[in-house]
Amino acid sequence: MCDLLRINTDRGVMLHDQESRFSINGKPIYHFVGTSTFSEYTVVHAGCVAKINPEAPLDKVCVLSCGICTGLGATINVAKPKPGSSVAVFGLGAVGLAAAEGARISGASRIIGVDLISSRFELAKKFGVNEFVNPKDHNKPVQEVIAEMTNGGVDRSVECTGSIQAMISAFECVHDGWGVAVLVGVPSKDDAFKTHPVNFLNERTLKGTFYGNYKPRTDLPNVVEKYMKGELELEKFITHTVPFSEINKAFDLMLKGESIRCIIRMEE
Amino acid sequence: MCDLLRINTDRGVMLHDQESRFSINGKPIYHFVGTSTFSEYTVVHAGCVAKINPEAPLDKVCVLSCGICTGLGATINVAKPKPGSSVAVFGLGAVGLAAAEGARISGASRIIGVDLISSRFELAKKFGVNEFVNPKDHNKPVQEVIAEMTNGGVDRSVECTGSIQAMISAFECVHDGWGVAVLVGVPSKDDAFKTHPVNFLNERTLKGTFYGNYKPRTDLPNVVEKYMKGELELEKFITHTVPFSEINKAFDLMLKGESIRCIIRMEE
Repeated sequence: MCDLLRINTDRGVMLHDQESRFSINGKPIYHFVGTSTFSEYTVVHAGCVAKINPEAPLDKVCVLSCGICTGLGATINVAKPKPGSSVAVFGLGAVGLAAAEGARISGASRIIGVDLISSRFELAKKFGVNEFVNPKDHNKPVQEVIAEMTNGGVDRSVECTGSIQAMISAFECVHDGWGVAVLVGVPSKDDAFKTHPVNFLNERTLKGTFYGNYKPRTDLPNVVEKYMKGELELEKFITHTVPFSEINKAFDLMLKGESIRCIIRMEE
Repeated sequence: MCDLLRINTDRGVMLHDQESRFSINGKPIYHFVGTSTFSEYTVVHAGCVAKINPEAPLDKVCVLSCGICTGLGATINVAKPKPGSSVAVFGLGAVGLAAAEGARISGASRIIGVDLISSRFELAKKFGVNEFVNPKDHNKPVQEVIAEMTNGGVDRSVECTGSIQAMISAFECVHDGWGVAVLVGVPSKDDAFKTHPVNFLNERTLKGTFYGNYKPRTDLPNVVEKYMKGELELEKFITHTVPFSEINKAFDLMLKGESIRCIIRMEE
């Protein structure tokens, strides 16, 4: 991980001179997490730029940002399910759907989606999810439900919610001996991960990931190539497109949970 | 992990007929964790027997039992430190010394021993430990002390104490981005492992192990070979030898913490 450039939401300025490159009416507008891409032109640190295939359609590959790459990489690079194995995905928002897509690409045969909102299950099928558990439908912990469905536990689990309880369930639902749980969600500052340590003795592994362990400059061009070769479908993540003048509609769709990704199209 | 034969301290009988093979004055003596080796002859399940090199001296290779194999394997098979890397070992009892020996064999260059009893440090040098931390000597958490010694954290840590606080420290003292912590100790039933999940997001890994991930039948013969070839020294684990008639002296030495391993010699 890069100490110099890693995400810093408080910085707001360029590293070189601690100044912003944007202003309106003489007042500075601060940079956002090193990219500041809500403008037609931007200024970013050279270390934050990755050169991709110039043939790639920008209105598609732009979805390869934090959420989708984190979910994809959490499964492909960190959980690494073997072909034919079982994967539980906790949370079927954009990150979880990307994690499921990663499991599908990796050849997992059982992809179990876990979400408190059952209406998300239909859409999740497009991303390879083929079994569903809504914890609300059961009167025992979801990890026990999954253990029963899978004869002792799943091979891999990926947690994409940020809920500490889901993190614990994701770890406790993997199989003894080889199970790997990957934590993706960003927890609250005061959360503590609690589990009985015998779960570790039984040869389980718990890992976390940041940006799906992709290194942006070296790995992102290859993810774009995967899309160009048809090995990764990005269109299904794009549920809406709006012009820049209707950007607030995009926020509405996001807040209502109706969009996965909404493309904001610059007017020409 | 073998569901059928895994350690079961309550079973006490053979699987085949649920009977014991030992008795005294007509009363059964129960089997102990599948081996029952405190006798000149024993009866064990075929799955609990490993065939080793017949040239191997039994009064040396007998130390390749639960504790030493667990410690060795925790480092060699699970933590897998790279040559030149740093390893922290929590607890310098027999298991911790074996973990340090595993780090030495793996080529780690910094092996940091952590123990509350400073008198253990001298002996630990024989097992490759070359730096020492007694948490009592510092007024901040030991994970912070280690982070300062190692510019952010060790590459690997192995916890061999069974103390939940040591487990948490062992996880929190590894480096972001690549650090791996391995839990070996057997915790109390009511302990809960607590840490802030952001520690996982920073790409650390937490693993547990049972018997150092060695599979007894297939792997133990190779560990014996390692000893026969001089790649693994077992003599330094053997601090005492007593005849069977003085077996209680061996228990005394163990309880006082004076022995690493004491060989009980059968009288002929």
